[in-house]
Amino acid sequence: MARIVCKYSLFIIWLVLILQYSLSTCAHSKKLYENKPCKRFVLYYHDILFNGTNIANATSAATTNYTSLGNFKHGMLVVFDDPMTKDNHLLSTPVARAQGFYFYDMKTTYNAWFSYTLIFNSTEHKGTLNIMGADMMSEETRDLSVVGGTGDFFMARGIATFRTDVAQDDYYFRLEMDIKLYECY
Amino acid sequence: MARIVCKYSLFIIWLVLILQYSLSTCAHSKKLYENKPCKRFVLYYHDILFNGTNIANATSAATTNYTSLGNFKHGMLVVFDDPMTKDNHLLSTPVARAQGFYFYDMKTTYNAWFSYTLIFNSTEHKGTLNIMGADMMSEETRDLSVVGGTGDFFMARGIATFRTDVAQDDYYFRLEMDIKLYECY
Amino acid sequence: MARIVCKYSLFIIWLVLILQYSLSTCAHSKKLYENKPCKRFVLYYHDILFNGTNIANATSAATTNYTSLGNFKHGMLVVFDDPMTKDNHLLSTPVARAQGFYFYDMKTTYNAWFSYTLIFNSTEHKGTLNIMGADMMSEETRDLSVVGGTGDFFMARGIATFRTDVAQDDYYFRLEMDIKLYECY
Repeated sequence: MARIVCKYSLFIIWLVLILQYSLSTCAHSKKLYENKPCKRFVLYYHDILFNGTNIANATSAATTNYTSLGNFKHGMLVVFDDPMTKDNHLLSTPVARAQGFYFYDMKTTYNAWFSYTLIFNSTEHKGTLNIMGADMMSEETRDLSVVGGTGDFFMARGIATFRTDVAQDDYYFRLEMDIKLYECY
Repeated sequence: MARIVCKYSLFIIWLVLILQYSLSTCAHSKKLYENKPCKRFVLYYHDILFNGTNIANATSAATTNYTSLGNFKHGMLVVFDDPMTKDNHLLSTPVARAQGFYFYDMKTTYNAWFSYTLIFNSTEHKGTLNIMGADMMSEETRDLSVVGGTGDFFMARGIATFRTDVAQDDYYFRLEMDIKLYECY
Repeated sequence: MARIVCKYSLFIIWLVLILQYSLSTCAHSKKLYENKPCKRFVLYYHDILFNGTNIANATSAATTNYTSLGNFKHGMLVVFDDPMTKDNHLLSTPVARAQGFYFYDMKTTYNAWFSYTLIFNSTEHKGTLNIMGADMMSEETRDLSVVGGTGDFFMARGIATFRTDVAQDDYYFRLEMDIKLYECY
């Protein structure tokens, strides 16, 4: 009898120790893996800049002139309410709006900085995602932060990867935005 | 004796399995519930826009003119340092300041985008909350993201729900901000 | 025999209860401690404002004039692409760039608001940190929020503590930024 009690005691002590360890790990770091987002979708962002005559189509406009620090539009700040589509056709039905701003910030090359909200209001998704970060336009892809969400995206966080799909002229460009959420509730 | 040992073994195996499952769930997704914030308070935001003559009362001013993209002040960017009160009286003692900016971003209606910091410096609370998101003014309520906090709100995250309390004229409006934090430390 | 069974049953019930409690705590609040960041480093931010003649050295420029709300440059918005160094020497090799903007927002004193991205592209670190918050310049130190990260700083969150290191004249100032991350993956 004593042997059995002893055996169980040891087993239970081991069980407690291993669970304590798991719990303390759990408390200090939940694990997230870059290749395992809990939600992912690709959308296209279309920016048609107001040039004074295209008011019917334009969805953004520069609210400050660029400064004379270099020749890459440093300081030009653009406020936008741009359509987001599932494929890269400008005229596809938008599945979301992107509202926010970007500005150019470098003296030696084109380089931008974005802060904006994706607003979903369809049968598929209702809610918003808030995104900010640097758009290093010379890189093939660049990562911005999804810093919060509401509605269907309640309290979400993640990464938005930009890829330039087309930069047609001064008044139209299109970005592929690969949205990966790692915190979903 | 053997029967008892067997019974316990099965029980303990079941216990280990159920705890392993709980732990793995815990590691991958902590649960947050929209109706169970860990902290909640309602504050009122008062914006008195500088009109050239009201310098004694004004707490915000437009730093860019609006663009000519539509008739809804698209592109007008307002920098503010506004009082936050517990009730909706402008002259109540402020419990916090809201410092940041908003701009109007739509061609077809009034619609704004905010990014700002709530600064608390009272006996009740010391610290800041950082908030950003779209203010879709035509909606009864709209949710922005609380993306971070400091001091008493160390590392907080949550949702700030806006409701227009009054929009008196071009130079004064008041928002009810219902701040719900879901991550508290 | 009955006594032993009873003893074990009570022990196991207690074990289950205490683990349930730990798990529920775990699910609702992981613990973070202000004095225990998972990563920490101090960097210096150098802002050389364009004054019309210093184009070779300038790394930032005002893209809006200040408003006439007070005498503390309220509304002046500066877009920057500034070097970050490990020590407080302007000419040290930068270990990161800071891209973003700040503006002054008070009527009665100098006070600023920042939103920017730290971009690391060295053998030591590759990735970005996104930061926003109020810079209450009259305080000895002030805390901003690190709201997201990418690359080596995948999904990071934390606090960036500012301290004014030098404010030489209207065209150069230097901030110490003490970056403390509390969520590391």
